[in-house]
Amino acid sequence: MEFRIRPPDAEAARLARARQDALVKPRGALGRLEEIACWFAARQGRAIPAPLTPAITVFAADHGVAARGVSAYPREVTAQMAAGFARGHAAINALAREIGARLAVVDVGIAAPLPGLTQVIDARVCAGTADFCDGPAMTRDEAGRALAIGARRCDADADAGANLVIAGDMGIGNTTAAAALVCACTGAQPEAAVGLGTGIDAAARARKVEIVGAALARTRVNAPADGLAWLAEVGGLEIAAIAGYYLRAAERGVPILLDGYISAAAALAAQAIAPEAAAWMLASHRSAEQGHGLALARLGLAPLLDLGLRLGEGSGAALTVPLLQASLRLHREMATFADAGVTDRPQDA
Amino acid sequence: MEFRIRPPDAEAARLARARQDALVKPRGALGRLEEIACWFAARQGRAIPAPLTPAITVFAADHGVAARGVSAYPREVTAQMAAGFARGHAAINALAREIGARLAVVDVGIAAPLPGLTQVIDARVCAGTADFCDGPAMTRDEAGRALAIGARRCDADADAGANLVIAGDMGIGNTTAAAALVCACTGAQPEAAVGLGTGIDAAARARKVEIVGAALARTRVNAPADGLAWLAEVGGLEIAAIAGYYLRAAERGVPILLDGYISAAAALAAQAIAPEAAAWMLASHRSAEQGHGLALARLGLAPLLDLGLRLGEGSGAALTVPLLQASLRLHREMATFADAGVTDRPQDA
Repeated sequence: MEFRIRPPDAEAARLARARQDALVKPRGALGRLEEIACWFAARQGRAIPAPLTPAITVFAADHGVAARGVSAYPREVTAQMAAGFARGHAAINALAREIGARLAVVDVGIAAPLPGLTQVIDARVCAGTADFCDGPAMTRDEAGRALAIGARRCDADADAGANLVIAGDMGIGNTTAAAALVCACTGAQPEAAVGLGTGIDAAARARKVEIVGAALARTRVNAPADGLAWLAEVGGLEIAAIAGYYLRAAERGVPILLDGYISAAAALAAQAIAPEAAAWMLASHRSAEQGHGLALARLGLAPLLDLGLRLGEGSGAALTVPLLQASLRLHREMATFADAGVTDRPQDA
Repeated sequence: MEFRIRPPDAEAARLARARQDALVKPRGALGRLEEIACWFAARQGRAIPAPLTPAITVFAADHGVAARGVSAYPREVTAQMAAGFARGHAAINALAREIGARLAVVDVGIAAPLPGLTQVIDARVCAGTADFCDGPAMTRDEAGRALAIGARRCDADADAGANLVIAGDMGIGNTTAAAALVCACTGAQPEAAVGLGTGIDAAARARKVEIVGAALARTRVNAPADGLAWLAEVGGLEIAAIAGYYLRAAERGVPILLDGYISAAAALAAQAIAPEAAAWMLASHRSAEQGHGLALARLGLAPLLDLGLRLGEGSGAALTVPLLQASLRLHREMATFADAGVTDRPQDA
């Protein structure tokens, strides 16, 4: 698949910046909120951006590498949590209600999905990935199909009116795959990219570092910039789908709010496929997962929140939406010095 | 005035913690959001806290020290901004609408208030403070009256149903007074406590450091813990009112969400008057104002946001409310592992 991505609108950003500087507050006093308003102005192509209408899609799939004990939880939890999303029980459901976002759940390859999950969209590529220590996690064709599933899901969200998209993940073992992808895309060593995931101990983490190192040593990807090859070698079905979701969003000019570590790994893969995609991404938070910071740095993004989250599901992104809405409301509704009859300081040089 | 402050409910906090540990997520995966839910549980005295019904009161007053050029803005801006709050034009108005909070504005001592501000509550102690380089900013009696005004205003907010209170400030020159108070209450040097306020340059900041040092050298407060004396010597009418607002909130068991630097200085004065008050305070954000971090550390508080804000008005606190609401909704609405039929890991040792 090819993605044609246009740059954000620099003129709209300039007009938004001029408006920020005229609002009744010391210039710069709203800190990063001013930056956010201008960022959306450039992406919406208007000096005063419209309120956000966010959509969330959670992609779920299983990982062959989970059999190696890299997670604190057994693999069946992927299917159980997908069932929880369908029933409205999980963190992301509560957060979607809080921010008024529609939430969709897509099975891209849960090993053994629970029966009767009518609210989970069936887009199964296969029954989970293979253990990437022994060979590729999936074929290049499978990775491409997962990417396309994500892209189509983004179309559905955007066609339904979303002007901000959030992808969430569920997949026991997926911080191991994410760490391998982060190493592949940034050149980082496993020691720097591997974290504690859902809460493993130091011994399990040491094993996880070894597993990621072994997988990277096994792979023979000729072009380091071949994002699809890396997704197939050490990625995951839900990670490939998220990468496709992001690429299509960037292509359609729909702003993307990144979530945690899995999301950052998918964003790096998307960036490898189409470097211009990163211009459409905003980082919601830095998670507790070691390596998230270096992934965001490679994307050129500075997170807004740092609250020790490490849940995934899109939860950190959803949590950040009210902050974005507030920044846009301030930009839209505050008076200027002139309108308000307030004495401004002499214009800064 | 005396304030009798009870401690938070440790049993409710314990029950809330147990609930957090049973919710369908790895233990601790919601990071500081888990902490927030337990914090409110202890303050509301119930394992599952009710949603927040925040109220905001902005206290406005003028400062004699403003005549010394410590601010980037002229003194008349205090009255003009109070007029803006009354008309709904300012940042705090937009944020109050965003979070659905009632907003009140109280004139505790604007030098020359604009006529016809019927929506500004008239509680004027005097026409602004005196320049505290020459003598006390106000008499002890005036400081006490400002404190009582804040306490009564907290009663009004709590009686109207607020279960979370936010105080905002407006007063050209008030970061100078706040810095002096922070030095008085923490023992910090002016060099560490004085910042750029609304945006002064390095030369103006150097003058501000000197002014704060001179004021502290002039004062002769016998008891370092006499918060009211410090408020009278180097404080401000709005700062004293905010301290009173916080003290009454703590006395009534209503949680307090701190704002920026002025708010932290008022909180330190409140803590000096009644040390137990700090247990009822939550820090919303760390502002760009140098010295805010050390004030919060003295209060024993860790801010949730760090976005380079430096506006005051209660804006940083209002901005943080959706994060608190989200943490309470997660606590209230997520299923437990048992309810959701999800396999939990063995209980951590």
